[in-house]
Amino acid sequence: MNFNQIDRRQALVALGALGGSLGLGCAATVAPKAAADAHAAPPAKSPMGVLPWPYKTLDPDVVGQRGYDSYAKGHCMYGSFEAIVGSVADQLGAPYDTFPYGMFVYGAGGINGWGTICGCLNGSAAAIQMLSPNPEPVIDELFRWYENTALPDFDPKGIKFASVRSVASSPLCHPSIAKWCEKSSKKSYSPERKDRCGVLTAAVARHAAFLLNEQAAGRFAKASPLDPRTQKCSSCHEKGGEVENVRAKQICESCHPDPVLEQRGHQKL
Amino acid sequence: MNFNQIDRRQALVALGALGGSLGLGCAATVAPKAAADAHAAPPAKSPMGVLPWPYKTLDPDVVGQRGYDSYAKGHCMYGSFEAIVGSVADQLGAPYDTFPYGMFVYGAGGINGWGTICGCLNGSAAAIQMLSPNPEPVIDELFRWYENTALPDFDPKGIKFASVRSVASSPLCHPSIAKWCEKSSKKSYSPERKDRCGVLTAAVARHAAFLLNEQAAGRFAKASPLDPRTQKCSSCHEKGGEVENVRAKQICESCHPDPVLEQRGHQKL
Repeated sequence: MNFNQIDRRQALVALGALGGSLGLGCAATVAPKAAADAHAAPPAKSPMGVLPWPYKTLDPDVVGQRGYDSYAKGHCMYGSFEAIVGSVADQLGAPYDTFPYGMFVYGAGGINGWGTICGCLNGSAAAIQMLSPNPEPVIDELFRWYENTALPDFDPKGIKFASVRSVASSPLCHPSIAKWCEKSSKKSYSPERKDRCGVLTAAVARHAAFLLNEQAAGRFAKASPLDPRTQKCSSCHEKGGEVENVRAKQICESCHPDPVLEQRGHQKL
Repeated sequence: MNFNQIDRRQALVALGALGGSLGLGCAATVAPKAAADAHAAPPAKSPMGVLPWPYKTLDPDVVGQRGYDSYAKGHCMYGSFEAIVGSVADQLGAPYDTFPYGMFVYGAGGINGWGTICGCLNGSAAAIQMLSPNPEPVIDELFRWYENTALPDFDPKGIKFASVRSVASSPLCHPSIAKWCEKSSKKSYSPERKDRCGVLTAAVARHAAFLLNEQAAGRFAKASPLDPRTQKCSSCHEKGGEVENVRAKQICESCHPDPVLEQRGHQKL
């Protein structure tokens, strides 16, 4: 499913309808004259509703540095999104300069500290969706790379502690941190862990910028394979399999090691 | 950490700096005159950078219906975000009417089909962060309610199949779907599952609107408790505990049932 392409095809019609409904509320807006003008011609007034927004090739190392710096202001999701999209904004101005970047602080710590999706991935995926004409393979590649790579693989300027690399084997915040704590022998609320997540934000935003550049240049290629264990799980649990009770692309073993499978009647895989 | 309050305090300074840097790119914008005027006075030009955006009390049932309808256009994350924020936009117009709602299709299926965070929660959390002066307890309550409640608990008009309710015991997409498949005896790629996720989008957006209303009226109260098993896990693995290798608020047992813990030297909890 390529929603960006759907959006482009359907955007003018959809924006016309949206503009009509929103026009009802214009009398109460902050700038009623400008808003009324805007509603008069919905497709022209609202390039922000049409995706993707324009992209400019980025310097991945510069994006990485910005990710580290922005992490200090609004944590991981904000840091990665602002590093990527803000770097395009620096080159293009509107419509990027009125976007409420600060909303993405919600993704900190796997969304408000819940330990679910890594905020670096959540923010990068949002940025990729906003900027890519075909975001899905880019998001997939970024997530698969994150699962399988010893990270962080980039040291920005200003780093506070020597970087310790670990393989998350998951796109989730909590296992990513737990694996790093095991490798570094540091605690999850230590200043070293906090800095590591800033460096990780740099590394993930940098790789996302690299992938966006590759796609823009027509060179994008999937590089990170799915592990054989997950392939085997998927053959039964994914679409068309005997069980078909799963819709996922994550590595299975991180949350489903063998003892659980054996309890459920599986042979050791 | 309350980033929205930080944002409000720091927004004028930050927007001034942002406006300055972005002003360099104005010559290339779609509407250079308007953008240049805007950059001349950063705090006034960019109310969108200051969070939260203004809120108007919503009818939760109407938001729920809109969530179901928007799911059909852009899946779960888009559906929940658009239902909540779009409903405010209908009342207030600018700055909401130029926001690129379509970017949130990336959250479909736990982010591009990865099965991580449930898109209904990801979209609702983004909306809550955008609209609430104190988003963190509202996000926590929504997530805890989602983990513990038999959902979907609301039937919108146009529902295609009789609703089957299940308790996810997790904020993640993949276990939420697997639990529903077990309860309904339907497959994860069945039309019934697809419709269930649309109805779930309705239910989650509806509850998020209810919680936002409660907070706006000064009546918000935490209602969903943390389960004792997770409390016990947290006493060792969370901040200040003997192990301290975790930062999370999720129910532990969903991914860490007893056989895994026993293998790691735990007594049965």
